Amino acid sequence: MFYLSDAELDRLLLDDIAYGDLTTRALGIGQQNGQISFCRRQAGRVSGVAIAVRLLQKLALKVVTHVRDGDDVAAGAVLLVAVGNMENLHQGWKVAQNVLEWCGGVAQYMAQMVATAQTINPLVQIACTRKSIPGTKSLAIAAIIDGGGILHRAGTAESILLFANHRRFCAEPDNWEAMVTRLRRAAPEKKVIVEADNVEEALAALNAQADIVQLDKFTPQQFAWVLTQRQVLAPNSLLSAAGGITLLNVADYVRAGAELLVTSAPYYAQPTDIKVWLEPV
Amino acid sequence: MFYLSDAELDRLLLDDIAYGDLTTRALGIGQQNGQISFCRRQAGRVSGVAIAVRLLQKLALKVVTHVRDGDDVAAGAVLLVAVGNMENLHQGWKVAQNVLEWCGGVAQYMAQMVATAQTINPLVQIACTRKSIPGTKSLAIAAIIDGGGILHRAGTAESILLFANHRRFCAEPDNWEAMVTRLRRAAPEKKVIVEADNVEEALAALNAQADIVQLDKFTPQQFAWVLTQRQVLAPNSLLSAAGGITLLNVADYVRAGAELLVTSAPYYAQPTDIKVWLEPV
Amino acid sequence: MFYLSDAELDRLLLDDIAYGDLTTRALGIGQQNGQISFCRRQAGRVSGVAIAVRLLQKLALKVVTHVRDGDDVAAGAVLLVAVGNMENLHQGWKVAQNVLEWCGGVAQYMAQMVATAQTINPLVQIACTRKSIPGTKSLAIAAIIDGGGILHRAGTAESILLFANHRRFCAEPDNWEAMVTRLRRAAPEKKVIVEADNVEEALAALNAQADIVQLDKFTPQQFAWVLTQRQVLAPNSLLSAAGGITLLNVADYVRAGAELLVTSAPYYAQPTDIKVWLEPV
Amino acid sequence: MFYLSDAELDRLLLDDIAYGDLTTRALGIGQQNGQISFCRRQAGRVSGVAIAVRLLQKLALKVVTHVRDGDDVAAGAVLLVAVGNMENLHQGWKVAQNVLEWCGGVAQYMAQMVATAQTINPLVQIACTRKSIPGTKSLAIAAIIDGGGILHRAGTAESILLFANHRRFCAEPDNWEAMVTRLRRAAPEKKVIVEADNVEEALAALNAQADIVQLDKFTPQQFAWVLTQRQVLAPNSLLSAAGGITLLNVADYVRAGAELLVTSAPYYAQPTDIKVWLEPV
Amino acid sequence: MFYLSDAELDRLLLDDIAYGDLTTRALGIGQQNGQISFCRRQAGRVSGVAIAVRLLQKLALKVVTHVRDGDDVAAGAVLLVAVGNMENLHQGWKVAQNVLEWCGGVAQYMAQMVATAQTINPLVQIACTRKSIPGTKSLAIAAIIDGGGILHRAGTAESILLFANHRRFCAEPDNWEAMVTRLRRAAPEKKVIVEADNVEEALAALNAQADIVQLDKFTPQQFAWVLTQRQVLAPNSLLSAAGGITLLNVADYVRAGAELLVTSAPYYAQPTDIKVWLEPV
Amino acid sequence: MFYLSDAELDRLLLDDIAYGDLTTRALGIGQQNGQISFCRRQAGRVSGVAIAVRLLQKLALKVVTHVRDGDDVAAGAVLLVAVGNMENLHQGWKVAQNVLEWCGGVAQYMAQMVATAQTINPLVQIACTRKSIPGTKSLAIAAIIDGGGILHRAGTAESILLFANHRRFCAEPDNWEAMVTRLRRAAPEKKVIVEADNVEEALAALNAQADIVQLDKFTPQQFAWVLTQRQVLAPNSLLSAAGGITLLNVADYVRAGAELLVTSAPYYAQPTDIKVWLEPV
Repeated sequence: MFYLSDAELDRLLLDDIAYGDLTTRALGIGQQNGQISFCRRQAGRVSGVAIAVRLLQKLALKVVTHVRDGDDVAAGAVLLVAVGNMENLHQGWKVAQNVLEWCGGVAQYMAQMVATAQTINPLVQIACTRKSIPGTKSLAIAAIIDGGGILHRAGTAESILLFANHRRFCAEPDNWEAMVTRLRRAAPEKKVIVEADNVEEALAALNAQADIVQLDKFTPQQFAWVLTQRQVLAPNSLLSAAGGITLLNVADYVRAGAELLVTSAPYYAQPTDIKVWLEPV
Repeated sequence: MFYLSDAELDRLLLDDIAYGDLTTRALGIGQQNGQISFCRRQAGRVSGVAIAVRLLQKLALKVVTHVRDGDDVAAGAVLLVAVGNMENLHQGWKVAQNVLEWCGGVAQYMAQMVATAQTINPLVQIACTRKSIPGTKSLAIAAIIDGGGILHRAGTAESILLFANHRRFCAEPDNWEAMVTRLRRAAPEKKVIVEADNVEEALAALNAQADIVQLDKFTPQQFAWVLTQRQVLAPNSLLSAAGGITLLNVADYVRAGAELLVTSAPYYAQPTDIKVWLEPV
Repeated sequence: MFYLSDAELDRLLLDDIAYGDLTTRALGIGQQNGQISFCRRQAGRVSGVAIAVRLLQKLALKVVTHVRDGDDVAAGAVLLVAVGNMENLHQGWKVAQNVLEWCGGVAQYMAQMVATAQTINPLVQIACTRKSIPGTKSLAIAAIIDGGGILHRAGTAESILLFANHRRFCAEPDNWEAMVTRLRRAAPEKKVIVEADNVEEALAALNAQADIVQLDKFTPQQFAWVLTQRQVLAPNSLLSAAGGITLLNVADYVRAGAELLVTSAPYYAQPTDIKVWLEPV
Repeated sequence: MFYLSDAELDRLLLDDIAYGDLTTRALGIGQQNGQISFCRRQAGRVSGVAIAVRLLQKLALKVVTHVRDGDDVAAGAVLLVAVGNMENLHQGWKVAQNVLEWCGGVAQYMAQMVATAQTINPLVQIACTRKSIPGTKSLAIAAIIDGGGILHRAGTAESILLFANHRRFCAEPDNWEAMVTRLRRAAPEKKVIVEADNVEEALAALNAQADIVQLDKFTPQQFAWVLTQRQVLAPNSLLSAAGGITLLNVADYVRAGAELLVTSAPYYAQPTDIKVWLEPV
Repeated sequence: MFYLSDAELDRLLLDDIAYGDLTTRALGIGQQNGQISFCRRQAGRVSGVAIAVRLLQKLALKVVTHVRDGDDVAAGAVLLVAVGNMENLHQGWKVAQNVLEWCGGVAQYMAQMVATAQTINPLVQIACTRKSIPGTKSLAIAAIIDGGGILHRAGTAESILLFANHRRFCAEPDNWEAMVTRLRRAAPEKKVIVEADNVEEALAALNAQADIVQLDKFTPQQFAWVLTQRQVLAPNSLLSAAGGITLLNVADYVRAGAELLVTSAPYYAQPTDIKVWLEPV
Repeated sequence: MFYLSDAELDRLLLDDIAYGDLTTRALGIGQQNGQISFCRRQAGRVSGVAIAVRLLQKLALKVVTHVRDGDDVAAGAVLLVAVGNMENLHQGWKVAQNVLEWCGGVAQYMAQMVATAQTINPLVQIACTRKSIPGTKSLAIAAIIDGGGILHRAGTAESILLFANHRRFCAEPDNWEAMVTRLRRAAPEKKVIVEADNVEEALAALNAQADIVQLDKFTPQQFAWVLTQRQVLAPNSLLSAAGGITLLNVADYVRAGAELLVTSAPYYAQPTDIKVWLEPV
């Protein structure tokens, strides 16, 4: 797992447990020792374990992990177990559970998309956009990677991506060649990626020899047709499919020839269900 | 809207736009003036506007709003418009859009649950749990409120909620009366809320005169039956339904007599679609 | 102890020791090994130990504790001892001492109030307000709990508390029943607490069946009289005494029948005296 | 006022009002416009106004001030007034009040110490230690300055101050001259200040020609006697009195000849009382 | 300018002015009004103005700018002027000056490198590495852009860059083709950039058809020779020169045919001299 | 080393490695174990080791150090070695290298200045100003100390330093005696330091008996002449040389009699070269 700051982990903790668990305190059971187990109810792709470990360790708990992020587990698999006093166990419970459930859901969705696509074409890559749910960036990227996906771009400074919202401000908004040339010269270490919102724009972008033409909200049929033109107009250009790609239609796009799909769908996956059990030891 | 810190807004911004929009810079169009419009594609409940305004103002943009958080708008409604230079407009685009889309989706889901429930019983309240998606706490709560919901509890220190994971550590885990008495005495300004995982526990909790018994994953039929017992055993206790309550089954629980429902479903709503248009001015 | 963020501990440290201890550096003794001992001059309730431990550990010191937060110790008791190099010992000295002194003072004051009250009525609870000294929230709450007190409310979102400053904005500011009904409906999981500034308001609040009526700045005699009315008007309501309750008058209110007292006095307690001794090892 | 970070102000706000004022929300009165007035019940020195203004402005309130920090006002004086909607007014209420009360209390105590001392000797300075209550550093310093005091040292890197806890680690712990010489050479832009815990140490420090000898917990009589020796031994050295100096004994030390007093007493002053009034406009 | 967080600006301010300017306070001149002017002693490229403006505005000063970041000015040019009270002016003085001086120095160095290179070949781009001085990332990138340079990569997640330190861990460390193929497949939206530390590695990388081969510490002669091989082996590959490129040798590399140069030299430029003048108004 | 916050270390890390090393991930080699070695190419003064250790430990690496900050090492010396998995090693590589290179460069420059000066007069001290490169404060101070220098002042609140920019706002800007008297009285625990921009001002400052007169941009000859006047006018005053002091001219000032030099030059030193080697273990 890539590094997360202490501040980010502390925010996850304190959003939930600032000033402790009142119920534990009111019952006077905080100093008893116990064990907490996190167990996956449904089979599938695991994510969030490394983060959960750091969260629990911050609460002075001793943690043992049974799986790694990116593993596929059977239903009922124990993901991790921690021991310590009840006060700390209760503070770690839902925060860790919540991370495991959400990351697990995203990773599982991503893994299913990848499996569906790669069954048809093993070279396909599925990239997630920068439109993760506000506040979830790091966890979302971790889960995408654990699910076998890649990152389209983490932010606006990382890559060149020409939108109509840019073009409208250029001197010649329809002169794709001029724009592509300018972008290539200005950013020689980046691929020039341009978004096309319809077939005409796609052809213009191909004519301009963009490195990648991102076809937004094209049907699989439209995608396939543009691909045939690509062979002729710009054999070195790559076409990507974006906009509305989900688990339900990913196979259609892959069958239409897409080798790169760009999606935000996994971010909105339902969480996986993690059973948490605390008991005295 | 309740207050969000500058740090939280800056995190939303910089997660996406640290070091600026490379494409705008490469095109050399950053100093041109333009206008950005955010417009709602589907009708429904609005949320995130106040936050979007602060985000855009931080980028030195002048913002005019056309709606307020919590309003219901028609499809196509313009939510807000901002003007400034392209460099700043492009930095604000997706961050603000993303907040409006995600908050809008959560609020709309919540609003639909509330409308469904209150059509049957106008006194019903729907409360969201503390299990918001990691990192989204403030935005999630804002959206829940804009959707007409309330908050079950923001964190563990705010209210008393007795789980089996607590009871297992008590001297007499089945002596509900002792536990409720202790909690009431220890926290006289809080309601004593206890979770029951099955009918037997529910009856024990009612016998102990808990202020609220939260029935977790009961069927509507089970809920209705426990409600009949409540009349006899603990007429001052309130029953709440929790666990798996969604837009699809909320009506069943309300018809079964539930006046308080506790849910995490809205947090996982699909985002609403916001069309964003930039143009020179 | 409930969890504190690394940022909060670092702020305590760096407010005092940013760039190190110049005197140690100028003397060239920073790399020598030594031991620091924190010892309590006066007998009483201990608080701040768990926080001091984390502060000292952050400075790479090895710490051994001799007491736990919430313990009562005799004068002269050693609270904790740490070893490491002088540079780090000197950086930890006053920060840890200051936490132990301030938290100790607050906890001791609280413990004395509780002891005084519970000698008269063992069921009494003393709750501290959210008006802790600006910047001290976490430490103040920790000390209150170590002193045997409870928390009235940590913030404005946690509970319902109706003030005159709210009522003045309501359509019918004197219709207590309407306001209590609205609050109860809007927040079914919270007790409805209302503040009364005089006897008339207290009676109106009782007539409205508020869950708790908080009598602000009532004399013990007034409190006792309202309590007699409570029996008749609202037997399920609880009366709390607030405003000016200190160690000097707490007994009077308890004798007047108060079972719940709300106070800010412990926050302003004088610090307890901690002797700190550094020596080479 | 010196600059405070947005993060510090936001922490003061969010410690109290994270997720807003539930009571205002439950009453549905958040969008009404109103005015909040902060008025001082007791006469005395004002502090915290500039900070309160920034806090309220962050909540989008319009603020008018009637006094400045450091002013002396009569009982009943209005300090500031703000207007805006109820939701924001209620979020600003207690946070601003609490800053004004605590800072006001500290400044008033400081002002009284200074007045008492300077009545006897107008050249006396009273300096506050770095032992402010944990978490209050910035506000404490602001209040001290508003009270007419000065700062002894803000932290360990700012000045040279030799304690017995340093000396014990030196090669020759009793060779004051060697230590003072070393410190003076190592830090030529700082005064060499040394703490003496008894008369013998004081004489040794004077013999070593320390710039300032800080007499810790000396009686006024002892202070006066050492002062007579200073004339002979080290006429260029300054003596300061520290340890247990309060409003009650400050005059004794000044009469004993002290021109510089070092104290932590003002930090523990009782708060001044600020009346806050909200009303619709 | 791209957006900087309030926390970053506040850190710049408080690193220097926490608790205010003691000298101003001791002189009692803080409430007087004055004007501060920042003026450039040497001619050259301007940078840091937009940041200085935000810093000064945070101190409640009114600012007027006379130039924009990226402008070239004559010696003596006034960059910006601010008015306000002395307390705030003095807090803003050195922080703003320091930003203008450091950013100005970096931008000027960058501008000179670009001018030197583009005189020979107007299509050359000079990219700065991620090795900015620790803690200066945002300001360094801003200055680089103002100087006419571009960014090589902001961090490790942004682009593919294969080092020997990676290769040593691969199954077949000398199989460049396998590694390039794997990287291209794994990151289809990125250019595959590989570093070559000698001529053999460069040829291997070209044979593997890497998008860009970064020649580290090659002499201009070596660079020119590899370029001749590139024509044959990999006409679509780009060669970049990295490692030790400075203002002194940049022309040699451009003459050797380099169209892309990667450097860290500007980060270590000497600061430009900014004269600051405060006067009463 | 003095304490650095986790937030500061995390900022150094995440400025470079947010979301991990894409190349390592794309190669699929992240879980392999390896070792990283940092080795100094040039002989000289070491700095940044303690910080590098903490950075690498945050990435879960096991670190062994071979030198201490402030040591002088031969060319080729190994500074530290760390082991762990490749994913973490690659995240730590450049961040730690960069700290070691920059701090090493500053410390080495400082050490050379000190050696040059103390060869002539072993009592000379060289103090660095507060004008460190924006964002580098903590690291800069650490490096200065490791280089054998001292700190002139960390910020504006720490000491008294009278500039012309202050004097211009005083009632009598040319009455140095009045200003020095006021400053001495207002800050009895500080030395009164005043800056003189020419010989006339220097004499005025000496006549006013300032504790230190800081001669800004005087030639060595001018410095020496003022020193002769000092003997007569103010034998207890110290003269410091500031403004443009570098490694090239430091000897001239020391020979001219300066015992205290104030400089910013080391902050702009070129980095030392650290070779980093990763290999499987």
